[in-house]
Amino acid sequence: MEKNEISVMENILSANDTIADELREQLGQKGILCLNLMSSPGSGKTSLLERITGYITEGIFAIEGDIQTSLDADRLASAGIKSYQINTGPFGGDCHLEAGWIRDAIAQIDLSGINYLFVENIGNLVCPAEFDVGAHLNGVVLSVTEGEDKSLKYPLAFRNSQFCLISKVDLLPYLDINMQRMIDNVLSINPEIEILIISSKTGEGFDELIEFLEKNRIKN
Amino acid sequence: MEKNEISVMENILSANDTIADELREQLGQKGILCLNLMSSPGSGKTSLLERITGYITEGIFAIEGDIQTSLDADRLASAGIKSYQINTGPFGGDCHLEAGWIRDAIAQIDLSGINYLFVENIGNLVCPAEFDVGAHLNGVVLSVTEGEDKSLKYPLAFRNSQFCLISKVDLLPYLDINMQRMIDNVLSINPEIEILIISSKTGEGFDELIEFLEKNRIKN
Repeated sequence: MEKNEISVMENILSANDTIADELREQLGQKGILCLNLMSSPGSGKTSLLERITGYITEGIFAIEGDIQTSLDADRLASAGIKSYQINTGPFGGDCHLEAGWIRDAIAQIDLSGINYLFVENIGNLVCPAEFDVGAHLNGVVLSVTEGEDKSLKYPLAFRNSQFCLISKVDLLPYLDINMQRMIDNVLSINPEIEILIISSKTGEGFDELIEFLEKNRIKN
Repeated sequence: MEKNEISVMENILSANDTIADELREQLGQKGILCLNLMSSPGSGKTSLLERITGYITEGIFAIEGDIQTSLDADRLASAGIKSYQINTGPFGGDCHLEAGWIRDAIAQIDLSGINYLFVENIGNLVCPAEFDVGAHLNGVVLSVTEGEDKSLKYPLAFRNSQFCLISKVDLLPYLDINMQRMIDNVLSINPEIEILIISSKTGEGFDELIEFLEKNRIKN
């Protein structure tokens, strides 16, 4: 990066962190656990939320980040999840969500009765990892179709996350993927990360995922 | 974006375009067709190049863009493709390649006898589309596992591309994907785009892909 680019970037990140910290505290005081989901495009973040409604039927809200369209918010509405759509705009579109977007969204949302606020970040394994959105927990959703090496090639998202959901495992029989190597690669980047193996199609791993959510729920 | 952020961005884009134009002309004069491959992480760009060596055994060079690791360059070396690895760095890593990176890489590469220069961009469907890398043809690789709606949600990459390779079609029997809708969605963003349906696993569509490359080859 050029020198002036770096200075602009540092200012943006510092302002963002302040907002993120305030947001995290504010949500925590209301008993709302905020989870930021990061992933490549098409890794199954929306399908995951749809499937969760089979287990947790109330108290979920989703903030949907997309460059364009409200396709995901529409899908969630059909599944009975209330959501707020953020579109990051026309010029290619911002490639990540920032805490300010979430703060502005929350100002317009009725959060009474909400226990879990999911932020479905822009599908992008690079830029979202650089911006704290004010979540209590960051998670990466990694589809098995993306290959074993993604955590090595895009380490920051994995380093900055507390959990990793390895998704679409129903497709494993049709892929040349060594699952243990995929897991080991994730752990080599972040030995503390909690890994859950899931399929939103078959429901595999959802008992453990719901348990994980319940364990982290904020009890004020 | 903030006002100063926009001004920095405009300067960067304008400088980038100048370098890209020079690069495109320089490569063209040498009879080298440069193809920029953009996609989500794990859509199969490297597998595609590996498979191409079964048809075109000489005259291919690849510039590999990754945030970290030389895993892709190592794979290509095993497949007999010479390549140059660009790592965009430690701080999250630049999320796209710029023309300056390609110019610097090319200064260090022996391009004699090369007909096709592939630029394997950073796995990211957002940011790379904003930066002209000096290619003659831009292409999006879109895996069927990513879902039907990706062109609608990440339109710029599709709008700025001359071709789209829909990959991993060997997995179609195991997915709930309407292939025609996927194609229609791509065409709704860019009616001029050339779409090829491929599987690097089975070789489906590679005769057409090789024909496409041959058709676009620069004959000075």
